[in-house]
Amino acid sequence: MATLSPEQEMLNWGRLVLDGVPYADLVAAQNRDPAVEWFDHWLETADRYERLGDAALAKGHALTAGELFVTGSLAAHYAQYLWFDDRRSRGQARKVELYRRAAPYLSPPATRFELPIDDTHIPGYLRLPVVGTSPWPCAILLGGLESTKEESYRFEQLLLDRGIATATFDGPGQGEMFPHVRLGGDFDRYTSRVIDHLTTVPEIDADRIGLHGRSLGALYALQSASIDHRIRACVAWGGFVDMEWDTDTPLTKESWRYVSQVATEAEARDHIRQALDIRPVLAGLSCPTYFLHGALDEAPIDQVDKFKDLAVNAEVHLVVEPEGDHCCHNLGPTPRLEMADWLTDQLLAPRAVGR
Amino acid sequence: MATLSPEQEMLNWGRLVLDGVPYADLVAAQNRDPAVEWFDHWLETADRYERLGDAALAKGHALTAGELFVTGSLAAHYAQYLWFDDRRSRGQARKVELYRRAAPYLSPPATRFELPIDDTHIPGYLRLPVVGTSPWPCAILLGGLESTKEESYRFEQLLLDRGIATATFDGPGQGEMFPHVRLGGDFDRYTSRVIDHLTTVPEIDADRIGLHGRSLGALYALQSASIDHRIRACVAWGGFVDMEWDTDTPLTKESWRYVSQVATEAEARDHIRQALDIRPVLAGLSCPTYFLHGALDEAPIDQVDKFKDLAVNAEVHLVVEPEGDHCCHNLGPTPRLEMADWLTDQLLAPRAVGR
Repeated sequence: MATLSPEQEMLNWGRLVLDGVPYADLVAAQNRDPAVEWFDHWLETADRYERLGDAALAKGHALTAGELFVTGSLAAHYAQYLWFDDRRSRGQARKVELYRRAAPYLSPPATRFELPIDDTHIPGYLRLPVVGTSPWPCAILLGGLESTKEESYRFEQLLLDRGIATATFDGPGQGEMFPHVRLGGDFDRYTSRVIDHLTTVPEIDADRIGLHGRSLGALYALQSASIDHRIRACVAWGGFVDMEWDTDTPLTKESWRYVSQVATEAEARDHIRQALDIRPVLAGLSCPTYFLHGALDEAPIDQVDKFKDLAVNAEVHLVVEPEGDHCCHNLGPTPRLEMADWLTDQLLAPRAVGR
Repeated sequence: MATLSPEQEMLNWGRLVLDGVPYADLVAAQNRDPAVEWFDHWLETADRYERLGDAALAKGHALTAGELFVTGSLAAHYAQYLWFDDRRSRGQARKVELYRRAAPYLSPPATRFELPIDDTHIPGYLRLPVVGTSPWPCAILLGGLESTKEESYRFEQLLLDRGIATATFDGPGQGEMFPHVRLGGDFDRYTSRVIDHLTTVPEIDADRIGLHGRSLGALYALQSASIDHRIRACVAWGGFVDMEWDTDTPLTKESWRYVSQVATEAEARDHIRQALDIRPVLAGLSCPTYFLHGALDEAPIDQVDKFKDLAVNAEVHLVVEPEGDHCCHNLGPTPRLEMADWLTDQLLAPRAVGR
């Protein structure tokens, strides 16, 4: 295996493959002509999937077209990943475009929503299961740093297969929202705005809404569930409750600076330490909460202790995987299946009287 | 990446991952304690998935249990892969057992059949789609050398998602059939026996049965479709029409010897050259036939020429991928999606009058 460049080092192959990047593309990216830049290689990969998807559409092969467009969208995502110049916006635009093209052909399809908030709107997608019966429970999936609503396709399938609808959106600092709103301390307002919307969708059971957040998205999920008590269950997938900063890699620090829209690392550190400290609200967490932590995560285990000490009013299901990395991507499909089943059980279980 | 042992070299990572072996397990196998043998490592992996599957079942998580048991079955498959001593039968037994445990929990479930033939029986599985309407078209999937009916789970899903039922079985020299019948020249008799059965299943449309064979299974598919004209469409995935032998690796030659149940390589060569020469029957092929070949396959491109020269009565859809290895496993999901769509189109298309 060739020596990895810094941006490649940041990529977690377990994550890519489990999220739906074909293994063959990963090998091709590693073995590419060294004269072809990482960004260009992945964007060409995205273009290739779009051409293949168009060819499938021309033959009436809608399922395949959806799969190919969404695979192209993921390729564009990993093209722009951790670039901080104009490549970012070019890659983001392609990712968004290819997912929009995939949306009607996914099985089940993804329906776009745009929800006014302040002077902008929240872009997102809703998918309704084929199994089970309407009105369905719904899980809102939250991405983290360097993550967007287009990325959770495969995890959505696990929930949809189990009869849970899924909603995804870009919040402050993420994807389509980034040019309008930088990372801030009020992610819960955006989650709540999406819940407001879901309560108006006849196919969704407003009394069975759960949250599922990954990495920084796990912090957002804990924050949102602590404040908005319409949330019936919460999963924190590789989460934390305040910012360490010092243990982050240089590229991650640069990413914090970028999404904070500040000029210097020092400003970034101050901004995110202030914005991403949810310790003061955790006593408000009262729904059943699953907290998954990999003991090999760069986020230290004392984040788990802080969480337990503060989330005193929630029934906590804590899973610490001794061999797991950040989000336990290195452990294969099992942790994802277990999270999906737990959340399904919470949202499908008979509700307690008087809730 | 560590230097690979001979048995590891034989394994095609693209194939493993696309067939459903988690990438994390592949990495773990490569990075395992060198004191732990390849076979033992994968069999322990199979055991671990069984334990996880049992834990899921205990919680009522049937979908997850099915996924974990079938993943364990694949691990057992790659444990026994290319061993020619008693490890073979131990690994095979575990593979069969774990797939049997998975079968009722797969979505859709797999139903086992055992069809009397001569003094033995053909073991296999039938899966009926959730989409579309009964009676469904059905694709029979044929494995090749070192391959069995438990291995095509992921490809079956592609067809099932498109409204095509799937049937798999072990033929001569394969899996559960191997102890009873060695590799021979009459695989088509076993295919036809399975078709006899399918015509008695009310949920299957006997007039819309297709074949899909991989590697040596592609040769079997071409042979079967040339002889049994109840077959409406045929896919040869990395196929050939007679034996090269000389271009095979030492381990492949040993495998030919093993499944031929003879003592020497010379006997094996003579046996398979005689048994695996379908050139005399190819003029009988009259159904639409998809032939996929990777130009980097060790099976030379002149196999494609031989096929074209002899299959003069079939409408042939030939795909030669310039960058494809054997079965184009290195090209990711696209060739599989294209085959699934083509076969679906053939089996779902309105039948010509008078057929």
